[in-house]
Amino acid sequence: MRSTTGWQADSRGRTLRRTVLERRDLRPDDIAVRVDYCGVCHTDLHALLAHESEANGVLVPGHEFTGVVTEVGSAVPDFSPGDPVAVGNIVDSCGMCRMCQAGQENFCREFPTLTYGGADRQDGSTTLGGYSREYVVSNQFAYHLPANLDAAAAAPLLCAGVTVWEPLQALGVGPGSTVAVAGLGGLGHLAVKMATGLGATTSVISRTPDKADEARSLGAQGFVVSTDPKQMKAVRDQFDVVIDTISAPHDLAPYLRVTAMDGTLSHLGHLGPVTVETMDLLIGRKKLSSAGSGGRPSTAAMLHFCAEHGITADIELLPSSQVNTALDRLERNDVRYRFVLDMSDLD
Amino acid sequence: MRSTTGWQADSRGRTLRRTVLERRDLRPDDIAVRVDYCGVCHTDLHALLAHESEANGVLVPGHEFTGVVTEVGSAVPDFSPGDPVAVGNIVDSCGMCRMCQAGQENFCREFPTLTYGGADRQDGSTTLGGYSREYVVSNQFAYHLPANLDAAAAAPLLCAGVTVWEPLQALGVGPGSTVAVAGLGGLGHLAVKMATGLGATTSVISRTPDKADEARSLGAQGFVVSTDPKQMKAVRDQFDVVIDTISAPHDLAPYLRVTAMDGTLSHLGHLGPVTVETMDLLIGRKKLSSAGSGGRPSTAAMLHFCAEHGITADIELLPSSQVNTALDRLERNDVRYRFVLDMSDLD
Repeated sequence: MRSTTGWQADSRGRTLRRTVLERRDLRPDDIAVRVDYCGVCHTDLHALLAHESEANGVLVPGHEFTGVVTEVGSAVPDFSPGDPVAVGNIVDSCGMCRMCQAGQENFCREFPTLTYGGADRQDGSTTLGGYSREYVVSNQFAYHLPANLDAAAAAPLLCAGVTVWEPLQALGVGPGSTVAVAGLGGLGHLAVKMATGLGATTSVISRTPDKADEARSLGAQGFVVSTDPKQMKAVRDQFDVVIDTISAPHDLAPYLRVTAMDGTLSHLGHLGPVTVETMDLLIGRKKLSSAGSGGRPSTAAMLHFCAEHGITADIELLPSSQVNTALDRLERNDVRYRFVLDMSDLD
Repeated sequence: MRSTTGWQADSRGRTLRRTVLERRDLRPDDIAVRVDYCGVCHTDLHALLAHESEANGVLVPGHEFTGVVTEVGSAVPDFSPGDPVAVGNIVDSCGMCRMCQAGQENFCREFPTLTYGGADRQDGSTTLGGYSREYVVSNQFAYHLPANLDAAAAAPLLCAGVTVWEPLQALGVGPGSTVAVAGLGGLGHLAVKMATGLGATTSVISRTPDKADEARSLGAQGFVVSTDPKQMKAVRDQFDVVIDTISAPHDLAPYLRVTAMDGTLSHLGHLGPVTVETMDLLIGRKKLSSAGSGGRPSTAAMLHFCAEHGITADIELLPSSQVNTALDRLERNDVRYRFVLDMSDLD
């Protein structure tokens, strides 16, 4: 085994404490990654809250990180020590099912192995995440980080980025499309950048009027205050695609109403059960979908696209020692737009 | 005013009684139709049940009928007396809104005028439906009935037919598509015929194993018993489009599970509020939609398609005097697959 340092919650609660972690010795297809930057995702917060209430074992969050390859296994074709590299929220899958065969490892029928809190498919051990200085991962689930992307600001692309990229791609967003992004946070601000980069006319729907300038600076051409019925009515049936990034439970009806005929409202993340009036779908033949995470091919394609268009997240970079502060502030939505932890203080 | 005969429920209950009805004198764009055949739709039953509990005025159901033009107004370009003609569930709309301009009068923002129980846009009178010997309608909402279609068996195309046609078209069903039709009734049997006619590989999902032969005779290549978990599991993620024609409230999850990646589950009719787990949409990027009725262009296109492929409904033809029996049997689902009333006994 190898040892490294990381931030871990034990069974006593959600506070992360610096500790020594073990990593496996490299398998033939593994690479060892020096983690330089790791994004702080809402999922990390949810996992810690669940961990706190369940108190089962240890938890090391972190599933969107970038770094540098330090060592490669004996059967790794595409990576060499020194390569900039990125890892997302999946580190393995069955590879055999219809979904895996289609390059949608995120939908693996045996459920993909998550970057943390998952069970390693070979030894059954619990995976420990990227809030650490080193991660050992199969090269199949590592991505070359394009040289022109800032490694810190690129880290959130690996989860937030691909989560917005997949529905934009699946729904055919491109020049001529009209896209609305509901909610301007970690996911939303990347959705605006990507939709705009794809050539769509993009609007932001937000309950916060004073985000209008920020929305425009991100590339949005329109801004709609969701709490103003007049403004919402003015954009009725307007958007081919509505990317709903609002993480709290909410009524989908107003967002279906602004979806265009034959358009789709895609909710990101895991809202749990949602209720819709079928009439709100029927009138205008609208569709409801949901998205989260991405497969290997689309993750690679997304990084390529971002490199081409110079897209990264707008981040607040903190030393990893401030991880608990970052999580507390994230819980209060006090972030523009994503925290990224600088792991160099773990040396 | 003109007078005709029809079947009407008064405020005393749901029983339809033969009575004399008034029709308006022809406006310049109107045609008078001798109603020969009128289908019995589930909506008629629902309307009668609602009428019974509300006891508000009179109700003449019927919104899928065929017949012959007997007279035309002074500004009707395309119809002449003697023309075979068909009318569906909409007889007017605002004509100005975005939906009407797009040929989707069924989604008119001012709500389309329904063939019965609607309010005439000019004089405010309540529309009386096709369970009658004559109907007066704007030529804009009448359709030429193709000569090779049996007039009785074609009547249900005007509501049931276009209701299944619109989602099949909107979802791009054609050669290479895999379609499942859940529920084999009035809507379902037409969905099987149309999907097959469009070149799709079509399966029926039914809880009734003994419908397998019927499904095959309608053109289905596959048959899945919905209550058999093994059979349902065998078709997981299999169908690009699932047309769910089950009218009773039911769990959509099993039908989402058999929908293919990037596929759509389209529920027909008005289920009211439905609840879905977003995870059932997320895994496989599946979409939920709903459909019902159709606009003028697609109604005309549907009739053209049916003429080309010799598609009509499988019907049980009854003299209109048996309308109450037909409705009672429909309530018990005792029909293969649609009742059509022969109105000639009203002369």
